[in-house]
Order: sequence, then structure tokens, then C-alpha cells
Amino acid sequence: MWICENLSVSPEGRLTFAGQDTVILAEKYGTPLMLLDETRIRQRCRVYLQTMREVFGADALPLYASKALCFKGLYRIMKEEGMGIDLVSSGELYTAVQAGYPLEFAYFHGNNKTDADIRYAMEEGIGYFICDNSDELDAVNAEAGRQKIRQKVLLRLTPGIDPHTHRAISTGKVDSKFGVAIETGQAKEFVRHALALPHVQLMGYHCHIGSQIFEYKPFTDAAEIMLRFLAQMKHDFGYEAGELNLGGGMGVRYIASQPQIDYAANIAGIGKIMKDLCAKLNVTMPRILMEPGRSIVADSGLTLYTVGGIKRIPGFKNYVSVDGGMSDNPRYALYQSDYTVVVADRPLAEADGRYTVAGRCCESGDLIQENVLLSSPRKGDRLAVFTTGAYNYSMSSNYNRIPRPPIVWIAEDGADTLAVRRESFEDMVKNEL
Amino acid sequence: MWICENLSVSPEGRLTFAGQDTVILAEKYGTPLMLLDETRIRQRCRVYLQTMREVFGADALPLYASKALCFKGLYRIMKEEGMGIDLVSSGELYTAVQAGYPLEFAYFHGNNKTDADIRYAMEEGIGYFICDNSDELDAVNAEAGRQKIRQKVLLRLTPGIDPHTHRAISTGKVDSKFGVAIETGQAKEFVRHALALPHVQLMGYHCHIGSQIFEYKPFTDAAEIMLRFLAQMKHDFGYEAGELNLGGGMGVRYIASQPQIDYAANIAGIGKIMKDLCAKLNVTMPRILMEPGRSIVADSGLTLYTVGGIKRIPGFKNYVSVDGGMSDNPRYALYQSDYTVVVADRPLAEADGRYTVAGRCCESGDLIQENVLLSSPRKGDRLAVFTTGAYNYSMSSNYNRIPRPPIVWIAEDGADTLAVRRESFEDMVKNEL
Repeated sequence: MWICENLSVSPEGRLTFAGQDTVILAEKYGTPLMLLDETRIRQRCRVYLQTMREVFGADALPLYASKALCFKGLYRIMKEEGMGIDLVSSGELYTAVQAGYPLEFAYFHGNNKTDADIRYAMEEGIGYFICDNSDELDAVNAEAGRQKIRQKVLLRLTPGIDPHTHRAISTGKVDSKFGVAIETGQAKEFVRHALALPHVQLMGYHCHIGSQIFEYKPFTDAAEIMLRFLAQMKHDFGYEAGELNLGGGMGVRYIASQPQIDYAANIAGIGKIMKDLCAKLNVTMPRILMEPGRSIVADSGLTLYTVGGIKRIPGFKNYVSVDGGMSDNPRYALYQSDYTVVVADRPLAEADGRYTVAGRCCESGDLIQENVLLSSPRKGDRLAVFTTGAYNYSMSSNYNRIPRPPIVWIAEDGADTLAVRRESFEDMVKNEL
Repeated sequence: MWICENLSVSPEGRLTFAGQDTVILAEKYGTPLMLLDETRIRQRCRVYLQTMREVFGADALPLYASKALCFKGLYRIMKEEGMGIDLVSSGELYTAVQAGYPLEFAYFHGNNKTDADIRYAMEEGIGYFICDNSDELDAVNAEAGRQKIRQKVLLRLTPGIDPHTHRAISTGKVDSKFGVAIETGQAKEFVRHALALPHVQLMGYHCHIGSQIFEYKPFTDAAEIMLRFLAQMKHDFGYEAGELNLGGGMGVRYIASQPQIDYAANIAGIGKIMKDLCAKLNVTMPRILMEPGRSIVADSGLTLYTVGGIKRIPGFKNYVSVDGGMSDNPRYALYQSDYTVVVADRPLAEADGRYTVAGRCCESGDLIQENVLLSSPRKGDRLAVFTTGAYNYSMSSNYNRIPRPPIVWIAEDGADTLAVRRESFEDMVKNEL
């Protein structure tokens, strides 16, 4: 059950998160409620920053993948920790600007940046565009010409790796909406194109093989393919890329049967293989970037719900209904994602049976998790779902007109502070005429 | 291609919707954009209202299922058309109140109404609660006692029907988070319980077997099971229910290979079988309610996107990227739902190949549809996705911090009017401290 070290039990036998009593926090802020462990987020940033610097050199930089969780307070932390960020839209960029994040450390991603996105980001002084395709490269070049600058870019390439993760979050294969394939020869033409444009400065390459990957080899395979491509381009065009962005995707433990990945060891291992290969290929180790998102925020987040009712269907199953659901966490509906769930009021009490945790949305598929061992939940109990920091709030909706929950920081000294207010009914109708 | 009669082509060869040029509307309001055909929504309301009155009598009432699409302007139309509504949350109820909808015609649904929901709805004068389970019945009874009223209720029962639809939207089986099963004997106890409570007035029963059902028999099977249950309760308890809510779920045509259902004929057919059965069972035909949602709004909606780029991967497939995606339409990501897609600028031009229509979200699973025949889409073209009125806007999110699109009414005289403004970046950070 204790899949992450920021989880424990109070002297009264209640679940604690980041050292604080979750039941007291649920009473204070109401449910559904998302808690964020600020200390752990900062620790994870430091693991990436320090390890990458040790392994790859002082200019190595992890970029926080904003799409995992994006709000102003989080960008303030990324600024304080010296993290780079990756962005995928003007909306994320606007949020970073509002938070005072310095955009020279921001990388603009996405398979379909609009002309408006490109103009806005350049006006705000975005550090890099990670260009997805040749048409976009042309659009960036044209806008940079208009703004009379030379814009730094990376090229997004697909290394042709199938990392054995959920189909919806596997992105490094040749057949992908993202990037340009090495295997088909299109990536080489992409580089030729970039080198010929006057208003873009080609800084290097990017790849991302997928998400929630527990194996080690897909990452070293991708790094090897990218380095070989870098060497090939040096040979073909005399252009030796100075930066290589290896993307994100290292797995996070959601349930006890999944491993807890040692990110530092993984990074060190990737670094070792890359150094050897650079020597062999006679290329200089480029500046290395990575894009951790889930592994920064996932297990720093926890969601609390209140139990509404329990339904026991003899011969079938037991349902426990909570006051949130796919509106705040659509991941089970989308990917049948694993989650660990406990009764926060008594996490150590012996389980009496298996329960399907159902949300309150009017849809059969609105489930948080199936077949969870729980200690006889009752109306009014608080249910805690672990590891909800990534892709929960960021994917949340107002389906069934349910307001989005608040986010509360737990600081190192134990203080709880509201980071994002609960959405109001007024908010939901605000744009309706 | 012309799956719905509100679609056609202008003299200039561009797609029209509800008689209006979609390309001009895309230019006027920007994309992504959702258009709603007001005339068709009203027509569909009238089909249900008139047919149900003819078949079942003057007190029969269709209830618009708000979860399909909910905003103030839509409730104004439901009020004008004399439609009842079903609600599933305080947020939907608040929206109806803001629109001036008379709540005595509103039915409050859901598997997990909170105590706060029950109090708020009763204070606002909700017509009926459709009670999901015995615990909720107790909560409604207790609140009605506090407010010194007798609250009308229906009981939600599961008839044990498997309607062969997507698992996530099949709800009438015994194993469901919704309602109380007839088959297990629990429904009888539910009735006994309701009849014994002093502050609730049991008006009848409700069932809902699922969504997007094209077959006819599941509906008549469900009606038969419910009438037999009604007769059995008359025999067991001397209680003959005066109302029967048959739920929603009639299918909507999304692609040419699906049938266009004749809703009036379906209702008439169900009525015929029910009348015969009432005579046989010696019960009075109860007041009949139905809950159409998708069949009222789905093909009254159309979404317009602008094409960003086209990616051709030799030996694999072609991707066409649009400026929206799973943030405004998560149905393909959730259910692999079918949609018809055309190039709005030239819908009649001959297709040159198959394309996967990809959204702009940073996620491989963010697709609108795969293997669509299109006429060589180019950057700047407008892509139209048909039949997006139901479960698109209502399920939309700010994933990747993409603002939700505006909704524009097309009136019978062809006038276009903004119903819901496009969300702004300011809106998205409004609650962040």
C-alpha cells in the first residue's frame, strides 16, 4: 500500500500525506480535493538537475513537461529550482508568463503550433521551438524574419522505437502524429531544410519515445539512434548538433506491483552508454536535455474524495461512489490506468472485500478503479487516491457540470496553502450569453 | 457523406450547415468552433413531445438529458418548447435556474447525489428526485422532513438488459453503478422502503439501458420488464405506480453506414407493445417519460477546425493536424467513436487518400478519427466534423491549456448568434493564486 514515502499513518490511525492528516485537510477544504507535496516536487527537480549535471556536464537541463500539470504556482517553483520547461500551447505559455517564469528556458512543443502560437511565443521571447515538421519550420522561419531575429530550434525526430506502453501514450514509433521519421529518410531532409533557412538557428534534435516506461533499454536504444543520426548528419552535412533532447517518459509507480524507478541511476546509465558511443562515433557529447513531467509531479499529488454510497450487488460486485470521478480524473476511462486507493480514515484497517470505485458522473465508464481491496467503506468516509499529480487536474473537465477541485500545497514546514481555488458555478456559466 | 439533412453545399462548393456557409462562419468566429442548428433542436424536441403525447397521452413528457450538452441558452429553448429536463448535478441545476427554467419539470438523476445537492435542489423546488438507492432515499426523506415538504421521487431500477453498445455507456445491466436490480430482488425491497417513508411520495420507476442503441428490441424488452415489475408491485404491495420513465439511449447516425432512426416510429412501436401488455397485466398505462439527450442535440452540432499541417509517412499513413482535439472532443480517445469528417472548403472534391485526423494535444491518442477519405487537405483548410452536438462541449477540458471553443447558434432565419464565448487565457488562470 505504501507505494511512496510521503504516505504514512497518524497516531490516530489516519492517512497522512507529506506529514499532514488528510482527513483534517478534507474537512478544511472540502472534497474532491487535490493535495500537492511541494517538498517532493522540489526533490524530484533536484534529482534530475543534479544528476544530469554530474553525468552530462553543467549545461545539461531538465525541462518540466507542463502538460502533466500546469498552473501559476508550479511555474514559480520551476523558476526557483532552475528547471527549464516545455510548453505545448499559448495557454501554457501565458500561464508561465503570468507566473514570471523566464521564457528563455522554455521550449515550445506540439504537432500543430498555429501561426498565432508562433507569433505570440516569439514576441514573448521563447527560448526554443521544437519544430515538428518542415511546414512548421517554414512558419517559424517566416515569423522570425518578420520579427528580425534568428530563432533557436530543435527538430523533433521519431527514432522508431516501440516502448511497450499504452498505445495512446506511445509516441516514438515511425507511425506517429509527432515528428519526422529517421527510418524513412525524411529526418535527413528535415535537417537539410533547417540548415538552409536564414532565420532559424538549428541547435539540435529531439525525440520522445512515450510515457510511463519502466524498461531501461528503450531509452538507451533511443539515445543510440539519435547519436548515430547526429554522427551521420556530421558526415553528410558537416553539421554537428550541439544539443540533444531525449524527451521524457520514465515510469512512475502507481501500484505496489510496479517498481520504484531510481531516476538518478537511470540517467547515469544512459550517460555511460552515450559517452562510450560518442567516443566510438567521434562526436562531441551534445548538451543533454530531458523532459520529465509525470516523474516530477505524479506521486507528489493525492486526491481526496468523500464516499456517498455503497452498492452491493449479490453475485456481481460492490460499488463505492465518490463525489468526483472522470471529471477530475479521466485516466481510468481513457487508459484503464492503475491507481492505489485507501480509506483515508483508517488505511490500516483490514480489507473486507473488493470494491469498484465509481465516480459521480452519469456514465457507466466513470470509474476511478476496479477491484480495490478496501476496509468496509461507509458514507462520509474519505477515500484517498494516490499518485494523482500528473494528468489529473490537467485533463479535468466540467463534465456533468461538476466544478474542478482546488489544489492545496503542503509545504516542508507542514503549512497548507491554497494554490488553485475550487471552481464555482458562476465560473462555469461565465461565458454563456 | 450527407448523413444528416441539415448538411449541404453552397453554390461556391463549400459546406453549408443549417443553410449557412461554414467557411464564412469559421472566418467570422475563428476555429475551433461549434455550430448549433437551433431549428433542428426544436424539431427534435417536437418529434418527442408530439409523438409521446399521441402515443401515451397528454401527460407524457420527454426530459432533455442535460449531460449531453448544457448551457443557459439551451435551457431557454427547452423551456420554450415545453420540454422537461433531467439533471445530474447542482452545477446543471444552477445553470437551469440562471436560464429561468421552471424546475418543477426537472428530474434530478445520478448515482451519488451529495447531501448538499439534495438540499440545494429541494430549496430550488426541484420536481423529482430519481433516487438511485436506499441510502439516497433516506437522505431525500430526511431533507424533505427538514424542509417540511413531501418530495416526489422515482426509483431507478436496472432491468438486466445488455443493449450491445460500448461498455462505458451501457447502464441497464444488473452489474451497474446505477440503480437497483430487479433480478436480485433488491428492487422490491427498494419499493417497500420508499412506500414506508413519510416525506417522499413514490411516483414510479425509472430505467435506462444505455446509449447509442440502434436496435429496437432492447427498448421494448426494458418496457416489458418494467411493466411486469409495476404489475408485481401492485400485486405485492397494492401500489400501482403512476409514472414510468423509460430513459434515453436511441442511437444517432454518425457515419453513413449507421441507420437514421425514425424516433417517432420507434416511440409508436414501443407504445403499441406497452398498451397490449398493460391490458394483459391488468394495469393502467402509467404516465410515460423518456430522456432523449444525444438524439436531441448530436446532429444539431458541427465542429469546425483549421488544418495546421499534413504529415505523410511513406509505408505507414497520412496525418492531418487540426487546431483542436481531445480537449474539445475526447470521444475518440475515450470510445473510439465514429465521426464523419470533410474538408469544408470543398466537400464534394474527390478524395485522394485516407487520413488520420489528429488533434493538437501533446498525446498520441489525441485523434478525432482514423482512416478518413479526404480531398487532399492543405494548411488553412477548414475541416468539419459532423454530429458533435452531444458529449463534445459537455466533456471538453483545458488539457494542454487549450481554451474551450465558442458555441454559435444558427437560427431558422439563418442568423448566427454567439451562445457561449470562447474561453480566454485569463479565464483559465482565474482561480490560480
